[in-house]
Amino acid sequence: MPKPIIILDRPQLGENIGMVARAMMNFELNTLRIVNPRDGWPNDRAYATASGADTIIDNVQKFETLRDAVADLNIIYATTSRYRDMVKTVHTPRSACTEILTQSQEGKSIGIVFGAERTGIENEDITLADALITYPTNPDFSSLNLAQAVLLMAYELFSAQIKDKGVHLKKGHSPFATKADLDNFLNRLFIDLDEKGFFKTKDMTPVMKQNIENIFVRGQLTEQEVNTLHGIMATLKRHD
Amino acid sequence: MPKPIIILDRPQLGENIGMVARAMMNFELNTLRIVNPRDGWPNDRAYATASGADTIIDNVQKFETLRDAVADLNIIYATTSRYRDMVKTVHTPRSACTEILTQSQEGKSIGIVFGAERTGIENEDITLADALITYPTNPDFSSLNLAQAVLLMAYELFSAQIKDKGVHLKKGHSPFATKADLDNFLNRLFIDLDEKGFFKTKDMTPVMKQNIENIFVRGQLTEQEVNTLHGIMATLKRHD
Repeated sequence: MPKPIIILDRPQLGENIGMVARAMMNFELNTLRIVNPRDGWPNDRAYATASGADTIIDNVQKFETLRDAVADLNIIYATTSRYRDMVKTVHTPRSACTEILTQSQEGKSIGIVFGAERTGIENEDITLADALITYPTNPDFSSLNLAQAVLLMAYELFSAQIKDKGVHLKKGHSPFATKADLDNFLNRLFIDLDEKGFFKTKDMTPVMKQNIENIFVRGQLTEQEVNTLHGIMATLKRHD
Repeated sequence: MPKPIIILDRPQLGENIGMVARAMMNFELNTLRIVNPRDGWPNDRAYATASGADTIIDNVQKFETLRDAVADLNIIYATTSRYRDMVKTVHTPRSACTEILTQSQEGKSIGIVFGAERTGIENEDITLADALITYPTNPDFSSLNLAQAVLLMAYELFSAQIKDKGVHLKKGHSPFATKADLDNFLNRLFIDLDEKGFFKTKDMTPVMKQNIENIFVRGQLTEQEVNTLHGIMATLKRHD
């Protein structure tokens, strides 16, 4: 399955190209094309900010025009924040990435174009794009750093591919306690509390017990933690 | 509705603090706390990279310890990529942001903690967190730049809040053509093509017409574009 290619149109700062490479490697993209970079290429400053993503910098493909840079690709997305008086499909990064994933699975080669710092992509270059991508941002402060714009797309592509796993409870080496483990602890606790007169009225006792149980159920305890609770209870009861 | 507060635990470079402020403002976050910054505070270099997000830098709240920095908050998330032998709920950025949005709507004040460059958050500080956030990344190159880690969370918070609008077709000033507009064009085209012997066999004519129609239907044309097509057709027919 071909991976999307990142294309920087007339990038200015080598530092930004390096940070783009790092962001790409963070999310398993590997092909970077640059069109007519202002400060020439190769550029030592790109290595400084790539933080080890050197293979991407080493293999940068340089082109004179955007049209050349996309010539061998099937589908082009262009990122832009400015309104254009053009009829184009406009995606958010997330919806674009869902589509790109499908297109990649169909064997299509995809290019994602990012314009120059400040100026963005020229209208004549926008015309090349099958669709646009516009980031949801603060309307009063919408200008993203070039590397951060690439990062968000790379992150969304990666998230679309792995499917977001959402939330889970990470535990250590101890297995989770069974309900019987917890009941055993609670029963010991309730007996002790009862003996020591904790439950003042018979009416309220069941509700109080429920409330106490809820405290411990909510935590999804491990065996080790239940053992710790037993230890705490035993310690508190000790008469030294 | 209180907005989540970004907390940088022992940040090193002023440049990174500035880039964090820019990323926050891109996605409408406004409160930044820093704990024990290595290079002191205030730090001129933060302004240079904030690219105009000066109000966030001006209003940074500085603390001596993370425990102090979270004292007035209700719920704490800590971002980490390292495995910890602790029982904690672990979110992806996306699932955390769905939860944070709900909690914010309930009036809870939320802090999101980011560790120092390279070293991350100490285990004793992780303990303070109600839940962890781990980014899905390339397992062989997982280290995100500090500002980029903040950017992804800010982006996900913003996306959760506005709801991702997904894809739409952006048009210019011209309204979209009606189906009758398009039919009118296609009928004129088919008549001309017929007269000029384009459709070689009667059998294949319907399928060929369907194929041609599909070309133009797929584009979701505007009135202006249909007029342009009429113009093209008229021009091509002209005998000068």
